[in-house]
Amino acid sequence: MTATNEERWLLPAGIEEVLPPQARIMEFLRRELLDLYASWGYELVIPPFIDYLESLLTGTGQDLDLQTFKLTDQLTGRLLGVRADMTPQVARMDAHHLRRDAPTRLCYLGTVLHTRADGFGGTRSPLQIGAEIYGHSGIESDTEILRLILLTLRAAGIAESYLDLGHVGIFRGLARQAGLDANQEHALFGALQRKAIPEIESLIGGFGVTGAPARMLIALAELNGSDALTRADALLSAADRPVREAVDYLRRLADELNRWHPEVSVHYDLAELRGYHYKTGSVFAAFVPGWGLEVARGGRYDDIGRVFGRARPAVGFSTDLKSLLQHGQGLEQRYRETDPVYAPWSADPALRETVERLRASGERVINALPGQQQDPRQLGCRRMLAERDGRWELQTLGKVDSPSFDNQ
Amino acid sequence: MTATNEERWLLPAGIEEVLPPQARIMEFLRRELLDLYASWGYELVIPPFIDYLESLLTGTGQDLDLQTFKLTDQLTGRLLGVRADMTPQVARMDAHHLRRDAPTRLCYLGTVLHTRADGFGGTRSPLQIGAEIYGHSGIESDTEILRLILLTLRAAGIAESYLDLGHVGIFRGLARQAGLDANQEHALFGALQRKAIPEIESLIGGFGVTGAPARMLIALAELNGSDALTRADALLSAADRPVREAVDYLRRLADELNRWHPEVSVHYDLAELRGYHYKTGSVFAAFVPGWGLEVARGGRYDDIGRVFGRARPAVGFSTDLKSLLQHGQGLEQRYRETDPVYAPWSADPALRETVERLRASGERVINALPGQQQDPRQLGCRRMLAERDGRWELQTLGKVDSPSFDNQ
Repeated sequence: MTATNEERWLLPAGIEEVLPPQARIMEFLRRELLDLYASWGYELVIPPFIDYLESLLTGTGQDLDLQTFKLTDQLTGRLLGVRADMTPQVARMDAHHLRRDAPTRLCYLGTVLHTRADGFGGTRSPLQIGAEIYGHSGIESDTEILRLILLTLRAAGIAESYLDLGHVGIFRGLARQAGLDANQEHALFGALQRKAIPEIESLIGGFGVTGAPARMLIALAELNGSDALTRADALLSAADRPVREAVDYLRRLADELNRWHPEVSVHYDLAELRGYHYKTGSVFAAFVPGWGLEVARGGRYDDIGRVFGRARPAVGFSTDLKSLLQHGQGLEQRYRETDPVYAPWSADPALRETVERLRASGERVINALPGQQQDPRQLGCRRMLAERDGRWELQTLGKVDSPSFDNQ
Repeated sequence: MTATNEERWLLPAGIEEVLPPQARIMEFLRRELLDLYASWGYELVIPPFIDYLESLLTGTGQDLDLQTFKLTDQLTGRLLGVRADMTPQVARMDAHHLRRDAPTRLCYLGTVLHTRADGFGGTRSPLQIGAEIYGHSGIESDTEILRLILLTLRAAGIAESYLDLGHVGIFRGLARQAGLDANQEHALFGALQRKAIPEIESLIGGFGVTGAPARMLIALAELNGSDALTRADALLSAADRPVREAVDYLRRLADELNRWHPEVSVHYDLAELRGYHYKTGSVFAAFVPGWGLEVARGGRYDDIGRVFGRARPAVGFSTDLKSLLQHGQGLEQRYRETDPVYAPWSADPALRETVERLRASGERVINALPGQQQDPRQLGCRRMLAERDGRWELQTLGKVDSPSFDNQ
């Protein structure tokens, strides 16, 4: 069990530490996003890092059992979990603590842990950030969340992206129309997620589904792309009303979004069913070109608060700040700080006042420490305070080759 | 295992969630403190939330075994821990990743978890915030850390506080002078921490220590208060040189601190040995009147990076943001935001421009959602946008009795 020096600094796979200056850039983006959500009226909440397992695995969390690290509470012997997703905890706050009648807008940010790396770029510790609206049902709240996704990507310096829209009511309605039982629906759901058309055809044949219901279920796997709704009008014309209403909902949602963001690329994927077990309407994801995994995702999950005693409509999204930083461009430039100022070691009250004034004005000032032999430039300083006629003034220092302070 | 609705919203003991508006106040203080440390040249680092257990339990972490939640890594089968203290992780960053010659100033903030509630106000999930200087030994870097503690308390609205200073070299030197072996030193250390004078006397008698060394060890338990250094000069006059040097170090440290903060109350506790196993010099804690536990603590732990392959002098402090918020005064007033503005649902581009302008100027604007019957005041809005002659203007709304939006 005794580790060598070489082993002690190893991090577990998928677990990251963040060094300067990346940590400060992450902090800048964090603030910009939380302030963006605040400017839209979203109130910050901070869910706990660990929780009773049975609270974490409700609602949107029911698929997360295997992804959740388990702990035993020494105080009670009960099973705790480290949050793998904050959405169930935020739903609980709306349902149990806030209990408002009016729509409630909440946002949150924090580390979540996964036992295995998932869709978020190989990390097991995404820095999840998200926003939710409780208490409103309709395309307007969906649109507000989609607009926040687009503004989030823009704040992170992601210039090019596209949205993928779907609606769980389409598959759910077609499965009902075809008379599938729960097991059949589940099997077909799996095949659809893999877009495995021969398997889908063979399953549907095996279930004894024929005619229009069979054709429509098979068509679903190919109803994706920017023209999917137009094709759906023809291919799903024999569908029951809820299915056609869901297609129409997506069309109205895209129109409303287009009114605000005419520049955005909208794709559709009518077989996109992520979170099918708890989603109740629209589902969406944002992608960046050349990266197979989504950078943000969300959707409608009405009644998510029911397990906490209060069902309300709900729509929201979440993303991973680390993933945003990975795909964003120009953040170093945008969030660059001025180089710090070096202050010599001196008991002169005039120096102290100058330093305090500089710091209050937003400058970073590093105090010399006696015995320090280093060139101030090794601390990253390009300016220093020097006394001239009893006054302390800023002096510019020359460049130094390969300074040791940024040898990371 | 099926929980009722009533149980699902229960949180484990000592685990907190933070609701609005407290979460936003916490965010404000977080930013103010990180910006304070940045203005002194401290660079932000973000240690990982989980780590290999053997990395966490080194250096300052060696006393934390029982406080650390353990997890098994599914990928490797190795034992992981949830960080109970970020200091060892920050030391690793200095030793392994940054590897600078010049002094390095680092700050950090994040949740740590403890299996049982400890000194931080009954919580098992403190929001630890702290700062460290690596690469300088002496009263000047100790003073800088003490000044940061005082500025931290001031930023949190804690007007009244006092500092408790000690030095592990005093007990360590007296134990050596008395010829104690490691087991004897350990037993006496425990009794000193409890300030159990009869037990101390009986232990020293049992060890066969007599004369000046015995008297000095017994005197240590009572060498506390603001005049402790003066009394130490007399009571420890027969002590070996390292002990007298440690007393002198504390005197010079207090003098230096007094030069910057003449208003601060300094107490001494020469038997204060928190972290004795890894501390190497000064130890300090900050207290607020009427609260028995310290609100901040720190000290010198030179060579903490040795286990990671690089020993450097180090001094630092840490505190718990939640505890600061609990003891701080006037934070709600200082960090109060203006009430949000309500914007009606409308497709008018002029409204959109007005809303975007208001948000960019720092206002919070809540968009109406169609179908919403609520009074805007139920969303906390005291102003709304209304059209007049083709322009959107801010209108003030009257008061509403007990609005439902702040029924938390």
